[in-house]
Amino acid sequence: MNMEKLHKLSLNTRNLYPENKESPIHFLHDTNTPTHLKFIRNHFSYPYPPETNISIFISGHVQKSILFTLADICKYPIRTVHCVLECAGNKRSFFRPKVYGEQWENGAISQGKWSGVSLRDLLLCTGINRNANEVVFKGRDKGVKKKRVVHFERSLPIKKALHKDTIVAFKYNGKPISYKAGGPIRLIVPQWYGMASVKWLSEITVIKNKFNGQFQSEDYMYYPLPPNHANVKPVTSINVNSIIQSPINYATLSSSKHLIKGIAWTGEGVVKSVRVSVDEGQTWQTAYLNKSTNTESYTWVQWSLLWHFKRKGHYVILVQAEDSYGRFQPESALWNRKGYGYNEITKAFINIE
Amino acid sequence: MNMEKLHKLSLNTRNLYPENKESPIHFLHDTNTPTHLKFIRNHFSYPYPPETNISIFISGHVQKSILFTLADICKYPIRTVHCVLECAGNKRSFFRPKVYGEQWENGAISQGKWSGVSLRDLLLCTGINRNANEVVFKGRDKGVKKKRVVHFERSLPIKKALHKDTIVAFKYNGKPISYKAGGPIRLIVPQWYGMASVKWLSEITVIKNKFNGQFQSEDYMYYPLPPNHANVKPVTSINVNSIIQSPINYATLSSSKHLIKGIAWTGEGVVKSVRVSVDEGQTWQTAYLNKSTNTESYTWVQWSLLWHFKRKGHYVILVQAEDSYGRFQPESALWNRKGYGYNEITKAFINIE
Repeated sequence: MNMEKLHKLSLNTRNLYPENKESPIHFLHDTNTPTHLKFIRNHFSYPYPPETNISIFISGHVQKSILFTLADICKYPIRTVHCVLECAGNKRSFFRPKVYGEQWENGAISQGKWSGVSLRDLLLCTGINRNANEVVFKGRDKGVKKKRVVHFERSLPIKKALHKDTIVAFKYNGKPISYKAGGPIRLIVPQWYGMASVKWLSEITVIKNKFNGQFQSEDYMYYPLPPNHANVKPVTSINVNSIIQSPINYATLSSSKHLIKGIAWTGEGVVKSVRVSVDEGQTWQTAYLNKSTNTESYTWVQWSLLWHFKRKGHYVILVQAEDSYGRFQPESALWNRKGYGYNEITKAFINIE
Repeated sequence: MNMEKLHKLSLNTRNLYPENKESPIHFLHDTNTPTHLKFIRNHFSYPYPPETNISIFISGHVQKSILFTLADICKYPIRTVHCVLECAGNKRSFFRPKVYGEQWENGAISQGKWSGVSLRDLLLCTGINRNANEVVFKGRDKGVKKKRVVHFERSLPIKKALHKDTIVAFKYNGKPISYKAGGPIRLIVPQWYGMASVKWLSEITVIKNKFNGQFQSEDYMYYPLPPNHANVKPVTSINVNSIIQSPINYATLSSSKHLIKGIAWTGEGVVKSVRVSVDEGQTWQTAYLNKSTNTESYTWVQWSLLWHFKRKGHYVILVQAEDSYGRFQPESALWNRKGYGYNEITKAFINIE
């Protein structure tokens, strides 16, 4: 018997129909999340039947509508982006007061290498009209919302759509994208929360105006209290954030040296520093960052701090990440009705015996 | 592609070393929990190497010490008990103030048919001395606690040890007990929390006095505040309790009829009734019980109530089970330092749109 193999990891289920599961992120120490441990966030049932005749139709405010088959797409230069994908509702369960929706803990986040072609290459073929404003992406997944059948649809501002790293992806970590992960073809939008990376991509429409679909103007909007014109904002790029992978929250440990470790990430820019407090914020230590030198990275950084817990009793560990734009995890998360973007200073309560 | 098979269930991980995982109990609608979805609660690493020479040695305050091989044990009449096993720390994460330990939600509970022989049959062979008081069970799992190597060991009062349904089990749902589930041989103690059902059973010792092992006199004790001689009590039988399997907590549903359903269970006695409130306790409805007529049952009961949610807005669903001893789920759980026996009235917050 291989004892090591007994300790198998699998996804943690939040809901089953539609399937919503989170990654056992506290136990994932790799740079890339394997497909079977990647969080799953669905708004509807899986699209059925799975599409075999793969193509993407680009139309709308363009000179020429084009149907791209997978063979057509593969003629463009391959682009690989190594990035974090995080659900906007990740950590929703930590909001106080509580909010409705999937009660994600820390695991609605993954990281891996997505390969495909720049959306830009495809869009430019169509001759986008000069006054085009947004690009709308339609997934094959659909269901009933407010008594109407709607597809999952999202738009991007034209500038983000034309960014070289916004890709029409068909590989994940070197292999075809699994059906459950949105394959065979999905959009990948680095820096933005996961809702932008439309799965089971089938249609792309260039528009002149503002897109007002269910998942654009009702869901995936920040509604703080009191909601007014000034503070209701769309959910876009990922907030600077972190998790503590070890020790586990509410663990009891022996009084000795323990490695405090975890990951930190952000949307635009990169993580610049991570500081850790083991005395509830009275004093702070700078964590070691296992960081690539690439300043254009979209990946999380692994941070760690070896700490000697000498005194017995209760400790509160705090972690605060700061990014290259000077943004840092706030002391309290911006509460909003739909529970997006939670990034409060990360906490773990530890008992030393 | 079999779409149904896409929605696979697996255990939710709380910790990996030692392995502690809970059942996706909200999605389990069977009477018996299959082995691969049974919660896993370990105090130490899995015992290694797995024992192949299976035997149980009974000694201590007896006329004659006996080594029982598996072949010896199998000569006694087979007894099957259909029972709930619940970790004493199940629902620990719901205590306020929070307590240290594994942050179990609702899933540290399982149900199935355990087969073996009555422990009574084996004990009686040894000629228990008249003034024997307790029976101590030693598992093969061991590790360091307070700088000493200790095995997982628990005792039962002689009366509970001699109950016909306290069994030395070697089958679960008709198959050999898996190694991870404590096989090949483990104790099963119906009505008591799971810590009593010692896994990887190897030695049984009859004693005259009171057993004072780590898991008997330090852990698995209720320490309410303020702890004093009168209110510190050992954890024994299971408290009357319930969970709501559907709808999921913090779900948003349409304004129509929804089936509110779940399970309820208790230690001694049986579940007599389950009442449900959809208006935060102002009015109560009696739930339908899918109940066997067996008044000596150790199993959970499935309850349900079809409710028409007419008004839009927020609802608090409350569930309160009552058992045949007149015990019911309290309005607030008895807080205790180690977080055992949480059985507060079950709540779900629902948003009707």
